[in-house]
Amino acid sequence: MVYVTRRETFSASHRLYNPAWTDAQNEAVFDKCNSIHGHGHNYVIEVTVAGEPDPQTGYVLDLKLLKQIIKREFVDKVDHKHLNLDVEWFRSTIPTAENIARIAWDVLRPKIPSGALYQIRLHETENNIVEYRGA
Amino acid sequence: MVYVTRRETFSASHRLYNPAWTDAQNEAVFDKCNSIHGHGHNYVIEVTVAGEPDPQTGYVLDLKLLKQIIKREFVDKVDHKHLNLDVEWFRSTIPTAENIARIAWDVLRPKIPSGALYQIRLHETENNIVEYRGA
Amino acid sequence: MVYVTRRETFSASHRLYNPAWTDAQNEAVFDKCNSIHGHGHNYVIEVTVAGEPDPQTGYVLDLKLLKQIIKREFVDKVDHKHLNLDVEWFRSTIPTAENIARIAWDVLRPKIPSGALYQIRLHETENNIVEYRGA
Amino acid sequence: MVYVTRRETFSASHRLYNPAWTDAQNEAVFDKCNSIHGHGHNYVIEVTVAGEPDPQTGYVLDLKLLKQIIKREFVDKVDHKHLNLDVEWFRSTIPTAENIARIAWDVLRPKIPSGALYQIRLHETENNIVEYRGA
Amino acid sequence: MVYVTRRETFSASHRLYNPAWTDAQNEAVFDKCNSIHGHGHNYVIEVTVAGEPDPQTGYVLDLKLLKQIIKREFVDKVDHKHLNLDVEWFRSTIPTAENIARIAWDVLRPKIPSGALYQIRLHETENNIVEYRGA
Amino acid sequence: MVYVTRRETFSASHRLYNPAWTDAQNEAVFDKCNSIHGHGHNYVIEVTVAGEPDPQTGYVLDLKLLKQIIKREFVDKVDHKHLNLDVEWFRSTIPTAENIARIAWDVLRPKIPSGALYQIRLHETENNIVEYRGA
Repeated sequence: MVYVTRRETFSASHRLYNPAWTDAQNEAVFDKCNSIHGHGHNYVIEVTVAGEPDPQTGYVLDLKLLKQIIKREFVDKVDHKHLNLDVEWFRSTIPTAENIARIAWDVLRPKIPSGALYQIRLHETENNIVEYRGA
Repeated sequence: MVYVTRRETFSASHRLYNPAWTDAQNEAVFDKCNSIHGHGHNYVIEVTVAGEPDPQTGYVLDLKLLKQIIKREFVDKVDHKHLNLDVEWFRSTIPTAENIARIAWDVLRPKIPSGALYQIRLHETENNIVEYRGA
Repeated sequence: MVYVTRRETFSASHRLYNPAWTDAQNEAVFDKCNSIHGHGHNYVIEVTVAGEPDPQTGYVLDLKLLKQIIKREFVDKVDHKHLNLDVEWFRSTIPTAENIARIAWDVLRPKIPSGALYQIRLHETENNIVEYRGA
Repeated sequence: MVYVTRRETFSASHRLYNPAWTDAQNEAVFDKCNSIHGHGHNYVIEVTVAGEPDPQTGYVLDLKLLKQIIKREFVDKVDHKHLNLDVEWFRSTIPTAENIARIAWDVLRPKIPSGALYQIRLHETENNIVEYRGA
Repeated sequence: MVYVTRRETFSASHRLYNPAWTDAQNEAVFDKCNSIHGHGHNYVIEVTVAGEPDPQTGYVLDLKLLKQIIKREFVDKVDHKHLNLDVEWFRSTIPTAENIARIAWDVLRPKIPSGALYQIRLHETENNIVEYRGA
Repeated sequence: MVYVTRRETFSASHRLYNPAWTDAQNEAVFDKCNSIHGHGHNYVIEVTVAGEPDPQTGYVLDLKLLKQIIKREFVDKVDHKHLNLDVEWFRSTIPTAENIARIAWDVLRPKIPSGALYQIRLHETENNIVEYRGA
């Protein structure tokens, strides 16, 4: 098995807020991440697929193709957006880094044509990183 | 002269929008940066002061002090905020990287106790960077 | 399972030296890392916890809390210190990167409130990195 | 088990080309990577070994030694070379990132004196990364 | 004046070789950079323009536009190429980092629509960097 | 004029301490940087020379040569050392980043064979940076 990773970036804003809670509860748990109009990040997403290289090409999966899939299916839908207000996926899901990674997994897995999706790594800041390898 | 730089980060959202223009003009000029609910970045600000090192300390300016000034006077006022909606400085100024750097200069210059403010460098993304050294 | 990582930094000095050996043996094995007054590094520590995100918060573990634990329990005890001379943990343990990572694991594991500690990654320089996931 | 990684770099050129195919097939699959005189990269190779630290030294494997092995056995043979034309290993193997990582594994595994080779990670660009942990 | 920088990347190969010299002279001066089939780099180019922000937009120059100019006029002509063999600009100019930066300056200066080109910075590796601000 | 920069690294420890002061004064000014046995950093030094490229080579100065000069004249004398205790240059000079940069300038300037030394940039941490361009 060889693991092949493509790194892409997007810029988005979000607000951490649980609508089932009072404002005081939201403030207590989410602190400055609960700021009412949201705040933003330059997210970095690293998508890893695993497979055997094809003997004809030496590729597990053509990275030009993987780049296109990531952009078309995921990045173009979140880039320069407010995740809570503009993106359907986060209407009932709080856009924490954990949940963004899980949604990226669910969205991208059925679109990867060869090799299997192995991992989503999402950098929210240079100090906060999450990884998801499926349920 | 020695130039001393302190790097800090903050996460904020913004929208590029000129209220004197029609929606179509805004859309044409600012494109996806004009998205109505805003989007965000992990900004990196590098503040440079210039001066002669004090012979007693070997410091142009104590970097612990410079860090405190940057955080108290600038970063704490923009971090985890929507620049257009939450920050007074951007009520009548479009929060482009150029304008954020100029406001950081205007805010920080009177607060630097020794040495003179020399430059503000602001990274909006890993590919977009501005610098301002005063009028 | 989602893996959540917080990155922190500290600056410390150390000396690689085995007191059971002669000076010549120490010199032969540890070479310039055996320099008598020590030398130093800007260490980067990445602490990874694993768990299921809480459906109420979308968090495996609040990264603000993880940051506080790492700083209070580990970083504050080694930052701006000489590891061999100032830090009890290294009185009888040679402060190689391997051993610093193992001590960070032992110190932090009982303090992580939710999720389980999964990995310590320690960067000694930009080229030397160790990881530990427990015994 | 502790995992110890050494990072090295090399600069090389390569061409993605399958001699069993027509020019049109090569062009269709490899696109601009098939450019006839080749193009190049600053490759980053991260070699990870796994083992128990020696109680006498605190080392899994002396990183000075690992650095020497990587340079002598692998980097010196590919650095400042055209992989297809100058390096025997790629006479019948297309020098994709996947195949470079596999050859690094095969070349380095028998040379690692203590600990076991655990992983080769190869960065072809800042966005394209492969990992190999053996067959 | 505000200085605005856009960072782009390209991958190319080159050979340092002076056709007026003997092979021995080339070897003596250029050493492994003279390797006959060339070697390559992931170049990073940072293009800086200087100007007053437009009061209507807050922009010195729209970075989307600057990105397009850099790609169309420079990057697309060198990316995935062998500079000596495939690129007209280097037929009679040795493609050192110094000369690549000077050619980028000459090519891009007449194409920048507002603001003035201030600097080209070219990273050949993470350790080798050149800057050019015009004759 | 073209500006050519070579980046090198070294690991050292230091203590900020003015022997003309009481312990209380040292503690008040230098805080944790005054820790008695010192602490350390992975320093990054970037040495920039300025000149016209030689028409025969396309080089301002061969970067292999610049690398050798930096290592032989500066890095080898501070790497893996305690600056205050092991390095003559800091016997009567407090090893702040400002003073390390000034000493690197004084040491390297007479050794640069072609082009003129233009700047020393020294990174003490990822957030603290100094630059010196001479008196």
